[in-house]
Amino acid sequence: MEGNTNTNKEIGVEWRINMGDGTSRVLEAESRFGLQRFVSKVGGFFQRAWRLGVNEPKKSIHCVKVGLALSLVSLFYYMRPLCEGVGGNAMWAVMTVVVVFEYTVGATLCKCVNRATGTFLAGALGVGVHWVASQSGERFEPIILQLSVFLLATAATFSRFIPLIKARFDYGAMIFILTFSLISVSGYRVEKLFEMAHHRLSTIAIGTSICIITTILFCPVWAGTELHNLIRNNMDKLSDSLDGCVADYFSTDSETSDKTLKGYKSALNSKATEESLVRPLFCLISFQEQHNQDNNLTKLGSFLQANFARWELAHGKFNFGHPWLEYVKVGASLRSCAYCIEALNGSMNSDAKVPDALKQHFGNFCVRLSNKSSAVMRELAVVMSSMKKPTRIDFMVEEMRNAVQELENALKSLSKQPILPAEAVTLVEVVPLVTVSSLLIEIAARTEKLAGAVKGAAEKAEFEVETAEEAKTGQSSKGGN
Amino acid sequence: MEGNTNTNKEIGVEWRINMGDGTSRVLEAESRFGLQRFVSKVGGFFQRAWRLGVNEPKKSIHCVKVGLALSLVSLFYYMRPLCEGVGGNAMWAVMTVVVVFEYTVGATLCKCVNRATGTFLAGALGVGVHWVASQSGERFEPIILQLSVFLLATAATFSRFIPLIKARFDYGAMIFILTFSLISVSGYRVEKLFEMAHHRLSTIAIGTSICIITTILFCPVWAGTELHNLIRNNMDKLSDSLDGCVADYFSTDSETSDKTLKGYKSALNSKATEESLVRPLFCLISFQEQHNQDNNLTKLGSFLQANFARWELAHGKFNFGHPWLEYVKVGASLRSCAYCIEALNGSMNSDAKVPDALKQHFGNFCVRLSNKSSAVMRELAVVMSSMKKPTRIDFMVEEMRNAVQELENALKSLSKQPILPAEAVTLVEVVPLVTVSSLLIEIAARTEKLAGAVKGAAEKAEFEVETAEEAKTGQSSKGGN
Repeated sequence: MEGNTNTNKEIGVEWRINMGDGTSRVLEAESRFGLQRFVSKVGGFFQRAWRLGVNEPKKSIHCVKVGLALSLVSLFYYMRPLCEGVGGNAMWAVMTVVVVFEYTVGATLCKCVNRATGTFLAGALGVGVHWVASQSGERFEPIILQLSVFLLATAATFSRFIPLIKARFDYGAMIFILTFSLISVSGYRVEKLFEMAHHRLSTIAIGTSICIITTILFCPVWAGTELHNLIRNNMDKLSDSLDGCVADYFSTDSETSDKTLKGYKSALNSKATEESLVRPLFCLISFQEQHNQDNNLTKLGSFLQANFARWELAHGKFNFGHPWLEYVKVGASLRSCAYCIEALNGSMNSDAKVPDALKQHFGNFCVRLSNKSSAVMRELAVVMSSMKKPTRIDFMVEEMRNAVQELENALKSLSKQPILPAEAVTLVEVVPLVTVSSLLIEIAARTEKLAGAVKGAAEKAEFEVETAEEAKTGQSSKGGN
Repeated sequence: MEGNTNTNKEIGVEWRINMGDGTSRVLEAESRFGLQRFVSKVGGFFQRAWRLGVNEPKKSIHCVKVGLALSLVSLFYYMRPLCEGVGGNAMWAVMTVVVVFEYTVGATLCKCVNRATGTFLAGALGVGVHWVASQSGERFEPIILQLSVFLLATAATFSRFIPLIKARFDYGAMIFILTFSLISVSGYRVEKLFEMAHHRLSTIAIGTSICIITTILFCPVWAGTELHNLIRNNMDKLSDSLDGCVADYFSTDSETSDKTLKGYKSALNSKATEESLVRPLFCLISFQEQHNQDNNLTKLGSFLQANFARWELAHGKFNFGHPWLEYVKVGASLRSCAYCIEALNGSMNSDAKVPDALKQHFGNFCVRLSNKSSAVMRELAVVMSSMKKPTRIDFMVEEMRNAVQELENALKSLSKQPILPAEAVTLVEVVPLVTVSSLLIEIAARTEKLAGAVKGAAEKAEFEVETAEEAKTGQSSKGGN
């Protein structure tokens, strides 16, 4: 039937409605319009989804991995003889895989450990309470069980609000409540409970080991690597947009600037600094924002990716015990730079006019300073990604300081000897320039702090010393500005 | 035994170790020190937890509510006769309560709907696939089942990466995978499956209804109200810190300033602007940060609280269909103000000296402007919290514009007639003042945008018109600056 309608449509048969007055109206246009719109909407959705999958192959691979892990579990279940030991409730293994399998290795390991310990603790406590309740007679048994469920659920829920526990054991607390309630509600006798506990623990063991094997063996996504790349990319983005935004402001002749700017535009489109810089930086700390507004305990490192990264084994360039929490400090310094660049971008959009010649004169110093600052950021990004000890940073920071000094001198000289004797330069005309200059100086100061944070991280993580050859190639390709 | 040791300690019995050389050493000090440290650590933990509970009674009440809901479910289970209809697996009801019960009403409703639809859809599809598999012979049955689990799990996991689905149906997608896998793995016949589906749906219905009843009837925490308060509090904090930071900078005589500042210090302690302002504002958009760095689809409103608020019924002052997404715009404008204030705070910490007399002269204009700006923010906070149509805002924005004009005039006059003929004022000396002034002007511009966003929200949400009497009291208490 459906095939039929489609063919009709294709060969142009019209849909008509007979009206009360004997005429008939064509429905074709409207209905086709509605259908077309629907089809194009659905098509657009799938197109976007396809683009998402193609642009981020890691995510697509993750999906296949989930499918694989579930297939493995069900395969395991089909092989009945093997399954004999774990009883009929393969359900728990399936549930474990679905709930525990996360995007990164660290998150998966964290959930596995949480699930196992939560179940074990609640199981032990549940059996204990059950035993006490069964000893105290039929009348008190339900009261004791009810009361224990109420009290423990309340306490465990409360613990989930405590930042330290929230950061690391949130899922475990939930599993604790779940397991304890299930045991109390089950109404089984203690002997039966032991059997049940044994079953649950072994199925959870099967589920978690399948998860861990799948997540580590097939294209693992390490939280540590993600965090590492996130920091590096954001440094690159930040330096690009600093360069772009200053070059954009001081470009008087459109020809030369157009070339330079084209490279930056990608980082600076529309509301770029806010949308693409400051906000992604907050990925880094989204955990804190989401749940706790009190910052008392967040210092302890409730930092999502860094937190997950700590669960991970040694991998790639990162040894076990890599100081991930140092990355939090680097992230915080980066953010403070980003705020300032955002403010710079805002103050550049003001429509106050500045005399061209003056702008050009100052532009030299400002562009020079911004280049030095962004060069420092880029070098820091290189340091972070290559994990080599920073050797050129001190020199580059010194150069940046010199550029700051030059800009300050230019400001000083402005008041003593007007650059343009022909025109009288009033203070109002230089206000935007002065603002831009002092924001650039502030950005330079924050960049220096960022360099300090990266150096601290490099020291704690014991980055390797760069070989002379590497240093040379690095110098020629990235040195200078 | 334990009681014994405690008593011993209390009456001062010493712990000794007999050494090899015949002497004995007192362990007391060390062990007591270790124990004391442990006790004080645990004590500190509980103290902090207690403070958390006392400071945020809503969170404590939430914990009691979870305990209550679980007790209700287990009570329901104890009344066997009632339970006959839902079979022995009260487990699902318990699990539903544990997993679905969230802090706010909106989040709970969202999860309930997700769980019910996810289970229903996966159940229907699972039974269908099972039927097809059972028709295709014993050889193909496991292959079809395995393949369907693999494909659907992959597809559903992928859908969780799509921002629109991630924002609203993430939990539903997970439940879909879970239910479908369980059905496929179960290996039951189709008739048995219908029975199982019936049981699961009815237990989920019991669990969700207990959750919804508990969360709405006992001290409900509405996501909408939380969002509303969050925006209002942040506006207040922002205006306080703007006032505080400007007053702090321009206070030449410490006596008068100390009084004024004391009120602000709470908002401005340590790294306050960044820690307590900008970051809490990001609670508002934490969802976006956490998972998607592509902003293509986020416009659709993947805004955590606003998203949950949309699930909520009419409550308090908010009708059903309250334009929560307008609050996202207000939040974004607030953030852009916060960035600028952060930059202002940073540039004020520079150690450049400004001649005192000049500072005082400019201070008048700057403090005036910052007062006007913060007054606008405070009035906007009042508008948001009272949900009355803004009547005084236009007037106050006009006053703020005048203050901007005055500050610009002061800048102009500075270049023409030096205020202090005795000293020669060079440009370098006024650089910090010029920077502060232009940042304040930028903040005023952003405050105006914020006012526009609030007005837009007030229009869409159809805030009530203020009565003449209310306007009068408001004028006397909050009007002016």
